[in-house]
Amino acid sequence: MKHALNRGETPFRRHNNPFIRKPKQKGPFMTTKAFQDFYPDDYSHCYGCGRLNPHGLQIKSVWDKDESVCHFTPQPYHMAIPGYVYGGLIASLIDCHGTGTAAAAAYREAGRPMDSQPPIRFVTASLKVDYLRPTPIDATLQLRGKVKELKGRKVVVTVDLIAKDEVCARGEVIAVQLPKSMMMSG
Amino acid sequence: MKHALNRGETPFRRHNNPFIRKPKQKGPFMTTKAFQDFYPDDYSHCYGCGRLNPHGLQIKSVWDKDESVCHFTPQPYHMAIPGYVYGGLIASLIDCHGTGTAAAAAYREAGRPMDSQPPIRFVTASLKVDYLRPTPIDATLQLRGKVKELKGRKVVVTVDLIAKDEVCARGEVIAVQLPKSMMMSG
Repeated sequence: MKHALNRGETPFRRHNNPFIRKPKQKGPFMTTKAFQDFYPDDYSHCYGCGRLNPHGLQIKSVWDKDESVCHFTPQPYHMAIPGYVYGGLIASLIDCHGTGTAAAAAYREAGRPMDSQPPIRFVTASLKVDYLRPTPIDATLQLRGKVKELKGRKVVVTVDLIAKDEVCARGEVIAVQLPKSMMMSG
Repeated sequence: MKHALNRGETPFRRHNNPFIRKPKQKGPFMTTKAFQDFYPDDYSHCYGCGRLNPHGLQIKSVWDKDESVCHFTPQPYHMAIPGYVYGGLIASLIDCHGTGTAAAAAYREAGRPMDSQPPIRFVTASLKVDYLRPTPIDATLQLRGKVKELKGRKVVVTVDLIAKDEVCARGEVIAVQLPKSMMMSG
């Protein structure tokens, strides 16, 4: 059903209106579980993204169409100087959101749901972060990832880190599928 | 006094022999205080390197001749997968050791001791980390920084991260002097 815009209502506001039914996602990727929720227990201790690491950041990433998205609210102590987020946290978020996106993209490429066996896990070969402007600490940070390249065991993901509607940092993660020598039982 | 090598003794082993007196360092840089100990209070809350951040990593960097050095022992929860260090921690250490080295190099270039006014502080414009091999978590990590370029307000520092005598990660930090708009009283 076509939905007419009311006066003063923008398409953006419609998009966020909880009373308007969204089209259903199709296929095996229809999920509200985060990528990280599918990681086998043995791979769920990472400080950045492991759901079983009580000290860690426990980030959660999901698909938003062709982009992956993650929201993270920094703690007051995650500061660089008062008012701004510490660059190491930004690098950490980009790193783990990047490898999570790489894994999800590899499952998608293989036409496999993320809870199928054997598990596909990625590690970071290279991480690059450009800090474009200071990142305010009193905001929920949004990370948006895009798969730039997927070739064999290598996936390149670019990630924008957004705070208060501004891109504050931009990263690139070169992720490689975890070698067998480092694989655990799963 | 020239010191003869004993049979089987390499110059490298001599260098690390605590019984051989090392030449004294000269000038205003002869210090055992870390770079971060000189940061003004207002700049000492960084999660990575602020001595006043009780939640943070509180790294300490010093000169070792022309290289800067920092030792850090990861906590068990700083893991990626069991046995190995989380890449975000590695990025964080390289970041803060890099900006600390940049500041120390700028003071040195200006012929100023690090407790002189006004303070010189750097932020990260760009961070690149290559993860060369998995970093074992049951080791004290050594970071060794080198100033690759020092030009105006920009300093480029390369950092090797070493564990168990192997370079596990290699980073490059492009640091820029903190703009006046972000400077505090000091």
